[in-house]
Amino acid sequence: MSGYSPPVSAPVHEAVMPLAFLLGRWAGEGEGSYPTIEPFLYGEEITLSHVGKPFLAYAQRTWRLDDGRPLHAETGYWRCPSPTHVEVVLSHPTGVVEVSEGSLRSTSVVLSSTAIARTATAKEITAIARRIDVEGDQLVYHLDMAAVGVELCGHLQATLHRVSAPL
Amino acid sequence: MSGYSPPVSAPVHEAVMPLAFLLGRWAGEGEGSYPTIEPFLYGEEITLSHVGKPFLAYAQRTWRLDDGRPLHAETGYWRCPSPTHVEVVLSHPTGVVEVSEGSLRSTSVVLSSTAIARTATAKEITAIARRIDVEGDQLVYHLDMAAVGVELCGHLQATLHRVSAPL
Repeated sequence: MSGYSPPVSAPVHEAVMPLAFLLGRWAGEGEGSYPTIEPFLYGEEITLSHVGKPFLAYAQRTWRLDDGRPLHAETGYWRCPSPTHVEVVLSHPTGVVEVSEGSLRSTSVVLSSTAIARTATAKEITAIARRIDVEGDQLVYHLDMAAVGVELCGHLQATLHRVSAPL
Repeated sequence: MSGYSPPVSAPVHEAVMPLAFLLGRWAGEGEGSYPTIEPFLYGEEITLSHVGKPFLAYAQRTWRLDDGRPLHAETGYWRCPSPTHVEVVLSHPTGVVEVSEGSLRSTSVVLSSTAIARTATAKEITAIARRIDVEGDQLVYHLDMAAVGVELCGHLQATLHRVSAPL
């Protein structure tokens, strides 16, 4: 049998070329708040990579700033069916899956959830909205969330810097 | 700031202890078929890991046996709200998210999708059913799928072996 041979030298697929500015490993810090919880700070790492196919693979994890213990995580994929339209599919370890779509203008992405589904025991999340702005090697995002009966409002914001070149 | 410090020495969280038999890196081969496509063979790697929290992180990728080029991939999380009940949330790079739930008996898991959502440009998948049987270091799975107007029927089956100890 042939083993897995990711085409590391493969060019970025033309379909996701408009998202190539996101490629790499990003690290930084953020702050979270929500009407139902105490505000908190967190460390974060985001990795966006590709294998030459028409999607980017996305993985994210956050941790406590005081002792590095893991907090949240997300994994999924980014697609770009047109140069100005972005589709994102994500899984959350809280038992939630998210489909978000939106617009790409230059290096800014604005996404709104079009579908959220969850397992029987997961907390209810009804909407997620994301805005991501990249300037060179700095990535800033804001995330709004509607959950547990609270209407859509600010939940997370973070500033990250690219710490590794595109994978 | 404190960097990410995964508690590598953390014990498996008691909530996912019934799934601990899945932990590790698995590799093997499978065969795929569907009424709308030619049958095909593939190589596959599955990784199930944990960070001491009440979920397992899951990542899967398949490749062509002839040249190793990547085919499909999935990422997501496994939860175990009771010793006999399993919840799985997954993202597919085809623009699909999946929530599957089912039963755990000894080292066999039977899952059926409870929700599937997709982006505007993704192909329609309406149901996925999975059966996973582990005996020691061998993992066998069968996956049935209903998609593009075809009723639920066999799509994938593969046999993998554990190539790395639990992460």
